[in-house]
Amino acid sequence: MAPPRDNNDTDGSSNNNERVREPIVSPYMPKYPDPMSNVSKFKIIESTLREGEQFANAFFDTAKKVEIAKALDEMGVDYLELTSPAASEQSYNDCKTISGLGLKAKILTHTRCHMDDARLAIDTGVDGVDVVIGTSSYLREFSHGKDMEYITNKATEVITYIKNQGKEVRFSTEDSFRSDLVDLLSIYKAVDKLGVDRVGIADTVGCANPRQVYELVRTLRSVVNCDIECHFHNDTGCAIANAYAALEAGATHIDTSVLGIGERNGITPLGGLLARMYTADKAYVKNKYDLTKIRDVENIVAEAVEVTVPFNNYITGYCAFTHKAGIHAKAILNNPSTYEILDPVDFNQSRYVSIGHRLTGWNAVKNRIEQLKLGLTDEDAKQVTQKIKELADIRPLSLENVDVLLRQYHSAKETSSHLEVLETVINPDQLA
Amino acid sequence: MAPPRDNNDTDGSSNNNERVREPIVSPYMPKYPDPMSNVSKFKIIESTLREGEQFANAFFDTAKKVEIAKALDEMGVDYLELTSPAASEQSYNDCKTISGLGLKAKILTHTRCHMDDARLAIDTGVDGVDVVIGTSSYLREFSHGKDMEYITNKATEVITYIKNQGKEVRFSTEDSFRSDLVDLLSIYKAVDKLGVDRVGIADTVGCANPRQVYELVRTLRSVVNCDIECHFHNDTGCAIANAYAALEAGATHIDTSVLGIGERNGITPLGGLLARMYTADKAYVKNKYDLTKIRDVENIVAEAVEVTVPFNNYITGYCAFTHKAGIHAKAILNNPSTYEILDPVDFNQSRYVSIGHRLTGWNAVKNRIEQLKLGLTDEDAKQVTQKIKELADIRPLSLENVDVLLRQYHSAKETSSHLEVLETVINPDQLA
Repeated sequence: MAPPRDNNDTDGSSNNNERVREPIVSPYMPKYPDPMSNVSKFKIIESTLREGEQFANAFFDTAKKVEIAKALDEMGVDYLELTSPAASEQSYNDCKTISGLGLKAKILTHTRCHMDDARLAIDTGVDGVDVVIGTSSYLREFSHGKDMEYITNKATEVITYIKNQGKEVRFSTEDSFRSDLVDLLSIYKAVDKLGVDRVGIADTVGCANPRQVYELVRTLRSVVNCDIECHFHNDTGCAIANAYAALEAGATHIDTSVLGIGERNGITPLGGLLARMYTADKAYVKNKYDLTKIRDVENIVAEAVEVTVPFNNYITGYCAFTHKAGIHAKAILNNPSTYEILDPVDFNQSRYVSIGHRLTGWNAVKNRIEQLKLGLTDEDAKQVTQKIKELADIRPLSLENVDVLLRQYHSAKETSSHLEVLETVINPDQLA
Repeated sequence: MAPPRDNNDTDGSSNNNERVREPIVSPYMPKYPDPMSNVSKFKIIESTLREGEQFANAFFDTAKKVEIAKALDEMGVDYLELTSPAASEQSYNDCKTISGLGLKAKILTHTRCHMDDARLAIDTGVDGVDVVIGTSSYLREFSHGKDMEYITNKATEVITYIKNQGKEVRFSTEDSFRSDLVDLLSIYKAVDKLGVDRVGIADTVGCANPRQVYELVRTLRSVVNCDIECHFHNDTGCAIANAYAALEAGATHIDTSVLGIGERNGITPLGGLLARMYTADKAYVKNKYDLTKIRDVENIVAEAVEVTVPFNNYITGYCAFTHKAGIHAKAILNNPSTYEILDPVDFNQSRYVSIGHRLTGWNAVKNRIEQLKLGLTDEDAKQVTQKIKELADIRPLSLENVDVLLRQYHSAKETSSHLEVLETVINPDQLA
């Protein structure tokens, strides 16, 4: 599993060639601010301790929950959402414990739209309750009448109760993207009038795509005055993009979990969302969240739920900052922003430029020559690069292999026997 | 790493309660066909053997390339894209070998916009050449004049040559989303007039978001008559969603790689794209691609590049079809489409409903009682569920633990001592 990795870290500190990074600007980015967009003022509702508990492997005891809660709080997430106190006795006690930690993040719990659940939630001392109307079938099947009245009555009682306790309340539907639009808007309008802090849209099954999300949130934004929270499952790979589209359309809060863990294959991952938002508004994201702590919190959670951090995980996957193709390596060495929109330094990560393979290019090899202070010419770099490609058709070379070749070539040059060195080496194993 | 997993597979074959799946319909899906959209007629350019070779860990020898090529061909991908024959001698030979396999998929190679590269490519016998203009800086820095003329001249020579050899040719820019729009469109218009089969848009750095993609492809669609290929990196988690937005806007071809491997953390993953497209047009995707083979090809590639298939991988991640929360389990048992938009049977996968944890619900437990043919009442199911939640606050129960509890309870009921059973069991370890 552990990847072979070249250690020729060429981050800013060790590379004189690196210029100041260019700002990330795209001509397709809106030139004028969009008053509807919350891309530069979103909030995160971190749900590892609720949605994340619904991940197949997840079992967090109290100590682990506290550890995760503190780590997320240090990262600066705005809210922590916890499993319903109605789920089990320990779940109830854990809500109490975490509410009592004195964290900066507001503590929420997530309950069904039942008075029993709402009372339990209030008893635990949380700052707010995320209420969800129980089953998707209501909204898909009812047409105005009994069911609509039933939902509105239930919602009124529960919301009024929570508000009267001086707590935040969110009202969410389930499976919002397969619900009847008119019914959906009617319910949101009704609960907005009751004074909810937020309404919630949930893509419970992971079927939504960004343009649908944009349309629905934009429409909802014109119907309610309260905040809009969005929850996206990742079954078809759109959970991050949907969150972004929702913020563009005026949503205010996004649900995340660490590594995206949750029911089935989960929801919008915290690290992935931060990568996306960093690209859109680096200053806001860097000032608000401690991006250098992403890896720590991911490691805590990965260990707790017994999974390996995916090789292609956002920011912290081992290949996120590895550059390989020759054409990329050359540009990266001149100016990292050419092929890199996330600055590894901001995430406490390192950049790697891999050079011992057949896609390598002579500029990357030349850079290594400079790191080793060998003082070879461009022509030398090209010669050695050709040999590296030839050898790497047999197997990839480690950085050590490359260095041995470069040093042998360099020594031999004093006696003008450098081309013989290249002729002699016909297998990477000779470079051990 | 291996997850504890309940084995109470409740897929259609073993569950009498399962009704016919409802069609996936959303009121937000367009009611009328969009003539620009290619969501129901896209093609896949599978680039594991090109982009995938740029993955940090990737080294494919000829035998492995042939194995991967054949597996992808059996799955039904439309094109296979191979590493440039200019990269190394073996790369050249591999293009020849794979072109000679007689696969149904068309074979492409990917080269710089140089005559030397183009000639090498033609020599290998590929069906077509994906030409890319070398560096992103050209397009970001030039303003009409020398650079524009240079690019056009280069492109004209290379495209004309490839066309004259009777081969397909695509012309792509790099870093298209940070390029000047007017310059970009000018070049595409010029190469379209030269008769290219496709123009290519590449989000080389992974900065694009779906609304930008939609805008650019839609604009380009009105400028060129040829096909439009799109290539999306996944640095900020939008590679699947961007591909979908591109198809909605009129793109015709999407680049993928198995597990998404590629430069840095890669591009649109083949499995993830198929999950997304299946949700949009199940019939098209099922008829065109053999979805039951996704896992096999992913395993081949994962082994070759020494990575573990991510726990949250689309379709084949071990949790993709695992349902846990009580409220979900109840609905899933009644009608899978309630919480599931991908039918596991179509992907040769199994559904799991996890029941031995504190989020469990009595409907899921009742379903297990029925599977075991124990003939207990709803009241019994509720009693046992309460006990499971209590025990699962200590540690999650295996399915075996749950079964032991249910059988003990059932036996004791004959002597009316079933409530004593529940009182006696105070730790999951008693249920071994």
